[in-house]
Amino acid sequence: MRYGFGVDLGGTTVKIAYFNEQGELLTKWEIPTRKEHSGSLILPDIAASIADYISRENIDRSTLLGIGIGVPGPVSSEGVVNRCVNLGWGVFNISEELSRLTGLPVKAGNDATVAALGECWMGSGKGCRNMVFATLGTGVGGGIVTDGQVLHGAHGAGAEIGHMVINREETEPCGCGKKGCVEQYCSATGVVRLANRYLNANSAPSVLRKIENLTCKDVFDAANAGDSAALEILDQVYRYMGEFLANVADVVNPEVIVLGGGVSKAGQPLLDGAKKYFDQFVFHANKDVSFALAVLGNDAGAYGAFKLILA
Amino acid sequence: MRYGFGVDLGGTTVKIAYFNEQGELLTKWEIPTRKEHSGSLILPDIAASIADYISRENIDRSTLLGIGIGVPGPVSSEGVVNRCVNLGWGVFNISEELSRLTGLPVKAGNDATVAALGECWMGSGKGCRNMVFATLGTGVGGGIVTDGQVLHGAHGAGAEIGHMVINREETEPCGCGKKGCVEQYCSATGVVRLANRYLNANSAPSVLRKIENLTCKDVFDAANAGDSAALEILDQVYRYMGEFLANVADVVNPEVIVLGGGVSKAGQPLLDGAKKYFDQFVFHANKDVSFALAVLGNDAGAYGAFKLILA
Repeated sequence: MRYGFGVDLGGTTVKIAYFNEQGELLTKWEIPTRKEHSGSLILPDIAASIADYISRENIDRSTLLGIGIGVPGPVSSEGVVNRCVNLGWGVFNISEELSRLTGLPVKAGNDATVAALGECWMGSGKGCRNMVFATLGTGVGGGIVTDGQVLHGAHGAGAEIGHMVINREETEPCGCGKKGCVEQYCSATGVVRLANRYLNANSAPSVLRKIENLTCKDVFDAANAGDSAALEILDQVYRYMGEFLANVADVVNPEVIVLGGGVSKAGQPLLDGAKKYFDQFVFHANKDVSFALAVLGNDAGAYGAFKLILA
Repeated sequence: MRYGFGVDLGGTTVKIAYFNEQGELLTKWEIPTRKEHSGSLILPDIAASIADYISRENIDRSTLLGIGIGVPGPVSSEGVVNRCVNLGWGVFNISEELSRLTGLPVKAGNDATVAALGECWMGSGKGCRNMVFATLGTGVGGGIVTDGQVLHGAHGAGAEIGHMVINREETEPCGCGKKGCVEQYCSATGVVRLANRYLNANSAPSVLRKIENLTCKDVFDAANAGDSAALEILDQVYRYMGEFLANVADVVNPEVIVLGGGVSKAGQPLLDGAKKYFDQFVFHANKDVSFALAVLGNDAGAYGAFKLILA
């Protein structure tokens, strides 16, 4: 039996999982993503954590297939990352760099594309030939499978749905430098931004006013408890989400849209809210698109990353 | 040598072309699209026109490969059309129906997908593996090639980019029943609609005010002659066009965006105007996407339709 690592590099934490070649996740752990010094510590941290694990578990390196890694930004098929706005990175070959640091073969892909691959391989998209996967985390990413194939695009920048423009009236800038990107409304930070904007713009009573350093989870918890301000904030979020997912569906005509990432922990209310506005905005030929939660949860990225070295 | 027909069914005219199997267009002609009686005359008209041609030219029917046809709406891989809003059609199998009327094998595809196939086969996309084709005609359609394959989607409704929502403040309905669709701004009828709205909303002098039954061409001609109202109207059009094409590019990451259909006769000013706003709205990874005019012009659909029966 041979083994390998799947690494899901996020803006806040790095998830590392150890798999056997049959796709069984044997163990997993997390380390923080240290973004200081233009993100230069991130790959050495990952290499050190994997080296520690190999040595602690006395793993025979000849049984290792290598490392697959998903990164939050465009990655070419050769492994060149082209700026990861959330990490401070420029343009370099991450496969070569991480391979040099670990002595193992490395394959890299966009994190959301890789998570889509994971969900399509082992999760909610199993058996589907046309799927949109939206990762609603610190940022918003996407992964698309059309006619059974992962959509890479010309430079590996396919499915960058978090930077579609959804509001041309927006005044605050997105991390990417544009204004009005999906990510400013549908990510965890986007939900908090809309919440703070809402709370500052009116004086409606809300339990959210008592919370310092509001989080996305606080907003969903308050809405579940019936807080009317939180419900109105999430209605705005669902409207943006339904609208942009309708536009994505009108481009690729999927069977299913799978929502993953931290925001998707909100569960059924999120699916219902997004689907309600989706139905309002989508072309009639896409009305039967179903919505599902990522069943691999936060592990989708690790599964898909490992699948990169299997394929 | 064998031969066949490529048919491009539009909202105003039907273009019919006769090809040899090497893809040479030997002759072409047009007939009007008669939309009365829920579009029930359209296929009999096409069948009669092709039968006339075969008999007039004394064509040996055993040399005929068949007929490919592009239709303005979603078509499944089995040939089932799912409502063509501009023709008044419901749901039926167009391949079977036209085959019954002509006695020839028929393959059908979405008109814009088929035009994209034509441009990719013999036109501006020759050699490209990732292309977006936008047909700006009576309506707006799209055809997408990703990683060398035509994007069909789950039910043949891929690339329905004319019904992406671009303006959630729109008050007038689109032909599809929604409000704020791309088609309401970027089609020939959309350009005229924006022009009339602009002229009614202010009293700025313009040569357009003297024209009864304003056409899209009138607006472009006036702009080319320096009419400032026409220039402002087209600036609105270009902004919508650049924004929606940026969103499409962020989903599929093409090498080139090809503009076809009647509106594309406007030429370089259209390319420049759309590209200017595209650059403003698109994610940085897609900034190098080039814009081109369909070189097959109005024949792209016929080429692609004929390609359907060759493939």
